[in-house]
Amino acid sequence: MTTFEKNFTTAEYRRRIDRTRAAMSAAGHEAIVVCDPSNMSWLTGYDGWSFYTFQAVILKQDGDPHWWGRAMDAVGARRTVFMEDDDNIRGYDDTYVQNPDKHPMEDLARLLADLGLETARIGVEMDNYYYSAAAHRCLTEAMAKARLTDVTGLVNWQRAVKSEREIEYMRRAARIVEEMHARILELAEPGIRKNDLIAEIYATGIRGVDGFWGDYPAIVPMAPSGLDATAPHLTWDDRPMQTGEATFFEIAGAHRRYQCPQSRTLFLGEVPRKFRDAEAAVLDAIEAGLAQARPGNQAQDIANAFNATLNKAGFEKDSRCGYAIGISYPPDWGERTISFRRGDTTVLEPGMTFHFMPALWLDDGGLEITEPILITENGHECFCTTPRELWVKP
Amino acid sequence: MTTFEKNFTTAEYRRRIDRTRAAMSAAGHEAIVVCDPSNMSWLTGYDGWSFYTFQAVILKQDGDPHWWGRAMDAVGARRTVFMEDDDNIRGYDDTYVQNPDKHPMEDLARLLADLGLETARIGVEMDNYYYSAAAHRCLTEAMAKARLTDVTGLVNWQRAVKSEREIEYMRRAARIVEEMHARILELAEPGIRKNDLIAEIYATGIRGVDGFWGDYPAIVPMAPSGLDATAPHLTWDDRPMQTGEATFFEIAGAHRRYQCPQSRTLFLGEVPRKFRDAEAAVLDAIEAGLAQARPGNQAQDIANAFNATLNKAGFEKDSRCGYAIGISYPPDWGERTISFRRGDTTVLEPGMTFHFMPALWLDDGGLEITEPILITENGHECFCTTPRELWVKP
Repeated sequence: MTTFEKNFTTAEYRRRIDRTRAAMSAAGHEAIVVCDPSNMSWLTGYDGWSFYTFQAVILKQDGDPHWWGRAMDAVGARRTVFMEDDDNIRGYDDTYVQNPDKHPMEDLARLLADLGLETARIGVEMDNYYYSAAAHRCLTEAMAKARLTDVTGLVNWQRAVKSEREIEYMRRAARIVEEMHARILELAEPGIRKNDLIAEIYATGIRGVDGFWGDYPAIVPMAPSGLDATAPHLTWDDRPMQTGEATFFEIAGAHRRYQCPQSRTLFLGEVPRKFRDAEAAVLDAIEAGLAQARPGNQAQDIANAFNATLNKAGFEKDSRCGYAIGISYPPDWGERTISFRRGDTTVLEPGMTFHFMPALWLDDGGLEITEPILITENGHECFCTTPRELWVKP
Repeated sequence: MTTFEKNFTTAEYRRRIDRTRAAMSAAGHEAIVVCDPSNMSWLTGYDGWSFYTFQAVILKQDGDPHWWGRAMDAVGARRTVFMEDDDNIRGYDDTYVQNPDKHPMEDLARLLADLGLETARIGVEMDNYYYSAAAHRCLTEAMAKARLTDVTGLVNWQRAVKSEREIEYMRRAARIVEEMHARILELAEPGIRKNDLIAEIYATGIRGVDGFWGDYPAIVPMAPSGLDATAPHLTWDDRPMQTGEATFFEIAGAHRRYQCPQSRTLFLGEVPRKFRDAEAAVLDAIEAGLAQARPGNQAQDIANAFNATLNKAGFEKDSRCGYAIGISYPPDWGERTISFRRGDTTVLEPGMTFHFMPALWLDDGGLEITEPILITENGHECFCTTPRELWVKP
């Protein structure tokens, strides 16, 4: 009856669950309540833009996971999750939705009790967008005999090393983001309204490439020009692109919720000396960072090599220069685990995937030239073949 | 120096702040910490896709609001907020970003102390996506002498009645969503890949219409077909549209962050009797609901009239049939205040805006025919002129 093509085999979901259970055991959790949509999807296949109301996957040490959410979304769960038994899907009444008089966590507490977890040690993702302070207060009160502890990141960390199928989806997303950048380079010119260019970026990304359809990226295109590009996260309006300004394009291709972000910067007109210097410094520093991207090294090795080279050329970047990527939902396409920065001693392993994101936001403009990468057996591979340089058009 | 056009005058922001302060006083709050991006934007003009890291607007009973967030985003704040004094913008060090060893709320606590709020009664939005359980725990510990209380919805409620300028932005968004639906009706046909159609919907929405540029909607297009449309929140893949299936398009036009959602349903081929019956029932029930949409009536009057008419025709809808709309950021284009459902006794006032959303998800398909509306002095106005009917193409 399901017409959606499942993204992974049931065997793959079960391997993920086994890995997660081992981590749960090690930390002493009898069960976890997972509200992060990317973790929910990774564990069960659940997909839908329903995370604006409360929902969760409950994973015990035995049996299939349980999906819990708004009753109308239970229908979407039946169509997307790997679990075949309807008992593993439970919807709550619509009167719980955005109603100050009652909270959906009261219903979740009843489900947890039904699952025999009334007095259990249960992990909750304390620091997630989709587990609010009020949700925790309500669940704590309703589960007075249980012990709720923090498992923020526990599932996210299990996602760090990707399967072959996951890497294949990221490769498809990489083809898509390459195509998006090619389209930008083709169309961007003085006078084009920024929103018209963004419209083309969206359309290209969602049409996809090579028969691989585009999914929605977990962040919208960020494409500020000139002084606006001194800030990293502004989006767009209708001001036309102008000669003498740099515009960075921080965008992602997406396929079956897997994200491949990559940024490039386009200068219209004659490039000032300072901007060329920045380009040269960043390109050298990227090479230095990539040289450290291999199994056995630590995440901070990439950042330290990058920063040392950058500083030698007279530039500074005081923010992290990369983070783990994979499956994601808004508002973030990162995995919120590993960062390329001093002090992150995570050891790199084959199958890990990152957005190496050495952006520079200068006093008078921004320069983003970034690379999504895969750690391989012997080193690394850049997902994309997009030319690594500052783009210039007259 | 700012090149972004401000969305509202400083006078309008000050009126909003006055209104909010009155509500704060009535509830006994000396200050509020606002993490909801739509509330942050409504109070200060701040705009940017930076809400995946912690940020807030702090509003005391005196002085201009303070923007607080990641240091790199402080640059974007300077370019978008109405406050002119740099002292009202404070960024935190990047090492606080997604770092399990420290939490940005430690930094916010220092700012609150600097603002003289160390022992104050401070409202926090306990039930918001962008104020996690961990954030609250950290802030509570770091502000041991203060009293943190829940102000979920306090600012949202001040947004319920729109200004003329806000209504103008929503009218522009309405023009955009009309154009998006017209484009769907033009292009949809058996065989078109769903993602190719979605690409066109995006491009049309972001190009905008009549010179009004399209911003990103707070939810991506939802456009399931056939049995997938029995679930409300599935998105898309590349399966082609088929004869004999209904597809609903739940989409929004957006302009300067103001959202105008509207749904229509397209049937390809000969419409089954049951589907026609559902259409007739929904259209009658919409009329019955709209007849109650006038100042002085309660929100539930619309739902009760809608449901009574629907039930008489033999159909049922057990979820709410509408909600307040206006400025919004992902993951929800609703205001999370007023709902059209039994028990919501909010009295309608001129200037309130809603998505009247009487969708039916049946056993074998979905039917969404919806209307964004404005409560006027004497009744209501539908924002859009999109033909209100089930669309049919061969």
